[in-house]
Amino acid sequence: MTDKILGPGSTLGIVGGGQLGRMIALAAADYGLKAHVYAPDADSPAFDVAARTTCAAYDDAEALAAFARSVDVVTYEFENIPHATADILARHAALHPNARALSTTQDRLSEKEFINGLGIPTAPFRAVDTPDDLDRAIEVIGLPAVLKTRRFGYDGKGQRMLRERAEGDRNALFAEFGGAPLILEGFVPFEREVSVVGARGRDGSFAAYDLCENEHRDHILALTRVPAPGVAPETGRIALEIARRIADALDYVGVLAVEMFLVREDGAERLVVNEIAPRVHNSGHWTSEGALTSQFAQHVRAICGWPLGDPGRVGGLPVEMRNLIGAQADDWHALLAEPGAHLHLYGKGEARPGRKMGHVTRLGPVPAGS
Amino acid sequence: MTDKILGPGSTLGIVGGGQLGRMIALAAADYGLKAHVYAPDADSPAFDVAARTTCAAYDDAEALAAFARSVDVVTYEFENIPHATADILARHAALHPNARALSTTQDRLSEKEFINGLGIPTAPFRAVDTPDDLDRAIEVIGLPAVLKTRRFGYDGKGQRMLRERAEGDRNALFAEFGGAPLILEGFVPFEREVSVVGARGRDGSFAAYDLCENEHRDHILALTRVPAPGVAPETGRIALEIARRIADALDYVGVLAVEMFLVREDGAERLVVNEIAPRVHNSGHWTSEGALTSQFAQHVRAICGWPLGDPGRVGGLPVEMRNLIGAQADDWHALLAEPGAHLHLYGKGEARPGRKMGHVTRLGPVPAGS
Repeated sequence: MTDKILGPGSTLGIVGGGQLGRMIALAAADYGLKAHVYAPDADSPAFDVAARTTCAAYDDAEALAAFARSVDVVTYEFENIPHATADILARHAALHPNARALSTTQDRLSEKEFINGLGIPTAPFRAVDTPDDLDRAIEVIGLPAVLKTRRFGYDGKGQRMLRERAEGDRNALFAEFGGAPLILEGFVPFEREVSVVGARGRDGSFAAYDLCENEHRDHILALTRVPAPGVAPETGRIALEIARRIADALDYVGVLAVEMFLVREDGAERLVVNEIAPRVHNSGHWTSEGALTSQFAQHVRAICGWPLGDPGRVGGLPVEMRNLIGAQADDWHALLAEPGAHLHLYGKGEARPGRKMGHVTRLGPVPAGS
Repeated sequence: MTDKILGPGSTLGIVGGGQLGRMIALAAADYGLKAHVYAPDADSPAFDVAARTTCAAYDDAEALAAFARSVDVVTYEFENIPHATADILARHAALHPNARALSTTQDRLSEKEFINGLGIPTAPFRAVDTPDDLDRAIEVIGLPAVLKTRRFGYDGKGQRMLRERAEGDRNALFAEFGGAPLILEGFVPFEREVSVVGARGRDGSFAAYDLCENEHRDHILALTRVPAPGVAPETGRIALEIARRIADALDYVGVLAVEMFLVREDGAERLVVNEIAPRVHNSGHWTSEGALTSQFAQHVRAICGWPLGDPGRVGGLPVEMRNLIGAQADDWHALLAEPGAHLHLYGKGEARPGRKMGHVTRLGPVPAGS
């Protein structure tokens, strides 16, 4: 499809109706754009802020084509979009980020091969298709290691840490994963987890936010601090350069996040890429108040063919973002009353355990121990 | 109606579908609320970001009642809501700001009587119902003076400056105004126009933004600067106190703006109230980037019964907001590329002359002459 520069009044197609799609739609509205959201669930949070909605399955070829034809550009909020779906969308509209970014990142094997191909370190890895493969992979990679499904994993779903060779029966282990193609990844003894959230424009320009430090609990992001405390500025610079090279190699357009491990060896800092998220990212939520351009506004700018905005931090202040998971969102009233706390809620109905219900951002130095 | 504290997932009813309603709906969405927008025009900008819409006339009693019953609180984006309409809304839902704020402010006569009744100065004024009244009013007030319709005037519509007694034929002048009830207001020789945008919560708490200076062109707001440059801090304090007294006297809930003239006499500064807008206000648009809580978020907090947010300026920086009127919005691409410029567009179709299409906010010291 032709890739025109979008003007005010254009319509963004957003595939996926969760909080990320919702926040992209809100940012688009602030620029005078309309959002058309495509999602299979009738109570998708993003539907509530969209000018138009399509409630249909992700494999409904007819609905997908009609959706793509009705908009000026298509983007998405999650990377697990089937190849055939991306194909239909790209046939009827400009698709940003492109189908290559999707296919490369939605399979942990192709993702790691792509990253290593750029000379950028990842954990050691090996494809595992049979119980015998697993034995060989453990021999090469050693233990501890993490056995993961190659596709459709998120928030710790579809993975299992292996600490001892004798652990469990190989066949039973395979059965657990339902026979899906697997990958064994060597465990990286990281000091902290960091991420770069950056954007690449259609003209190849690149603008990244400062390095984020991320803390996970139960495999779900709990806390992001920016700039990552205690990390050498040179490491931050290298991390941003890694993200830029990945974006360039994918001919990427839009916001992406590159999650990395920071390993400290004999005092020296080393970065190991964990995974690429071809979309706006939870570790970039702090940008709504903390940066001069939010990641959502930046994503809209990139996919519309507009100049990228300034990713600098407001007043140069440090920022902290905490996710509100499940019942943590019950604190909404106290958070509204807390000076300096910026509360965001996603309009989701039920606060199930593990469900991301909102987040809260605080600017400025955060008291130790809080 | 009972006035409960709204929780996440509640629905805000917004009467009016323009940019103010749109920006209230966007702020509500950020708190996880749903918006139901009521407006008579099918292409209302606020419809595009609303979870639910009602397209019906402002005197459609049945549609108004159904709308009010479907939401948890009703608010509005403009003060010219007919009394009967407000009545129906208030019968079926909590209405904030209340009907008294509407009836007091939508008639220039009752508005000025109310303000004077608080001991707060306005321009001298006199009701004018006949050509003879006009002669008597001019005798009392003097010239120059401004003849205005008592109701439904905005952006300079429905008013005419009278400079000389002989000006025109009284009967012809009356015909011009279509026989509507009029008011003659003495001309105030102001040095600058200023406004206070503030919010009052359901608990009587009050939080105002710093004093704004406003420049109008062709009777339409062109530019707001905050804090109003060259105004004594004590004058700013008095202005905020005036706004608070007005809000208290109306038992007001929500954001209001009080427009004032600043008169300088023998070096001393004096404030004269021009009018009250019982709603979010164009001179508060800078708060989206320039304040810790935007006026839209603040309005949502107030009408939901939540604690008010911090109205302080981000980093204590001065802020400038320029409206994009008509073809000025054609500069959108240059504004997107300008470092430090925050562009907002309202998603309106046609950039007619005099139509507010968007605005742009800049933080930090603005170079002289720009």
